[in-house]
Amino acid sequence: MSAPRNMLADGPEFDRIRSLLAHAPTPGGTTVRIGPGDDAAVLDDGTVLSIDMAVEDVHFRRSWLSFEEIGYRSAAAALSDLAAMAALPVGVLASFALPSADSEAGADLMRGVATAATVVGAVVLGGDLTRSPAGVVVDIAVIGRADAPVGRAGARAGDEIWVSGELGAAAAAVHAWRAGDTPTPAARAAFARPRPRSREARWLARRVPLRALIDVSDGLAGDAAHIAAASGVRITVDEAAVPVAACVSSAVTDADEALRLALSGGDDYELLFAAPAGSVDEHVDAFMNEFAIKLTRIGGVEQGSGLVLRSASGSERRLSGYQHFEGS
Amino acid sequence: MSAPRNMLADGPEFDRIRSLLAHAPTPGGTTVRIGPGDDAAVLDDGTVLSIDMAVEDVHFRRSWLSFEEIGYRSAAAALSDLAAMAALPVGVLASFALPSADSEAGADLMRGVATAATVVGAVVLGGDLTRSPAGVVVDIAVIGRADAPVGRAGARAGDEIWVSGELGAAAAAVHAWRAGDTPTPAARAAFARPRPRSREARWLARRVPLRALIDVSDGLAGDAAHIAAASGVRITVDEAAVPVAACVSSAVTDADEALRLALSGGDDYELLFAAPAGSVDEHVDAFMNEFAIKLTRIGGVEQGSGLVLRSASGSERRLSGYQHFEGS
Repeated sequence: MSAPRNMLADGPEFDRIRSLLAHAPTPGGTTVRIGPGDDAAVLDDGTVLSIDMAVEDVHFRRSWLSFEEIGYRSAAAALSDLAAMAALPVGVLASFALPSADSEAGADLMRGVATAATVVGAVVLGGDLTRSPAGVVVDIAVIGRADAPVGRAGARAGDEIWVSGELGAAAAAVHAWRAGDTPTPAARAAFARPRPRSREARWLARRVPLRALIDVSDGLAGDAAHIAAASGVRITVDEAAVPVAACVSSAVTDADEALRLALSGGDDYELLFAAPAGSVDEHVDAFMNEFAIKLTRIGGVEQGSGLVLRSASGSERRLSGYQHFEGS
Repeated sequence: MSAPRNMLADGPEFDRIRSLLAHAPTPGGTTVRIGPGDDAAVLDDGTVLSIDMAVEDVHFRRSWLSFEEIGYRSAAAALSDLAAMAALPVGVLASFALPSADSEAGADLMRGVATAATVVGAVVLGGDLTRSPAGVVVDIAVIGRADAPVGRAGARAGDEIWVSGELGAAAAAVHAWRAGDTPTPAARAAFARPRPRSREARWLARRVPLRALIDVSDGLAGDAAHIAAASGVRITVDEAAVPVAACVSSAVTDADEALRLALSGGDDYELLFAAPAGSVDEHVDAFMNEFAIKLTRIGGVEQGSGLVLRSASGSERRLSGYQHFEGS
């Protein structure tokens, strides 16, 4: 359920309220296997559902993306929530609010949504369109199926923490746009055309006893903290191991800034997971062969709470609460 | 999928674009029993899904409703789409865009959504919350189940057209607000607290061979026209038979204006259906006893196309296309 967030960002107040709402009372609830507060809700019969809203000038700017890309990106972000449960994507419903009755814009948005659905083998099931007195709003609901959904809450001390792909590219694009620059094609594509890791997640779930799984939408640090909080463990991330996308370094000259984009830029939509020690290594090459993206071990799970970032020099910073890093 | 619409209204351009989007290509589609374009989509396994967006100053004004009522009303409108398929409501997902990080507003919205869900026996499955640079936006996705969903396309020549409850009250409230008046409590409640006719629809579906079913969200005339178009028939509505809510007459002195609100005001969320001649009469009293609302026969189905409104004097007006009435 976590919204796609980038450096325009809702800010920590909204994170806090969202986390409160995620625990709103669910009357009855006998049909809910995994309820609000995870990436998606899971019903008794394995139906997986999530919803994700993107608002102009919060999640994107119209000067950055075409309507088709806005539709694609919004649907991909929602579909990424299904990947985060290792669910099979089935369908997409899309609501659009548009400032004017521009039929081309509506059709372009829907075309982008349909493309994102097709990429993961899902179909467009319906939609709504309404007038917006202000900016563009896109809200996407997704439905999938999972016999064995993987939530956030199962990480245990001794597990390893892994991430798919490379991080920071989408944030590098936002960084460039905000500075008045043109992002590199790779960075722009990462922001405009994220690929939901649906097949990757199900591939992994069939081979590795995944303990906890999330998609990196809020940024690696924030999402690792979500797993730590849901699982009641401490997660330590080795900063030197974080796979920073090559295009990040060309967007920012400072290595610290590049790492910051990879750790907390958000919008990466890669898979972050906890798995028993030694259970992933044997699959790394096959994963790379199958999907042409990396799997990288970036840390581990201990008893305790919160997130610890360990620098190359061995110093540790502890993440406590929302977005506040303390030195230690 | 039709948006709740009232006299603030998206306007016909949006109706037209929405109807185009509703027929956006659905790749694959083997799992879709009833696709986009009906009130909700139905999958092979009887899963029913719909989505419905409400935007400030298009569907409601903040000066008219509390946040709790905005949440309730938005969820009720979406749940009404499940009723329109004779589906059992299961769950609700809610996305909110709010101008400021007002946690009370977010909680109030969610409380309203949860109340609407509870009223029909559904649960809140999840949600999203984001910042809105402009007004409030609420988008609601609903999931239900129907072994025998009733679409819009089955009306046949010789069928009767029936409607539940009374019409025009919500539109009377909007009419009063727009005139700077205070709506009557009954009219206000109809706008702020519509009750999705979920139980009513399933009760009817068990007893009557419903041929076509829709909820009255766009207004009786518009929704009857939807059934006519989907079924490839002509529907004639006897204006004298239309059950105009009592509070409508107290809001407008002119009887023609009262009828106009009942015919095209929208936001009634009553059930409009086609059934074989003589199949409903025997159930009218039991329906009234069970639900304390009326069932009224308001017209019939013939071969042809479009919607005909027959006045008390016998003159006929034909509705052709969107919102354009021609005398005849």
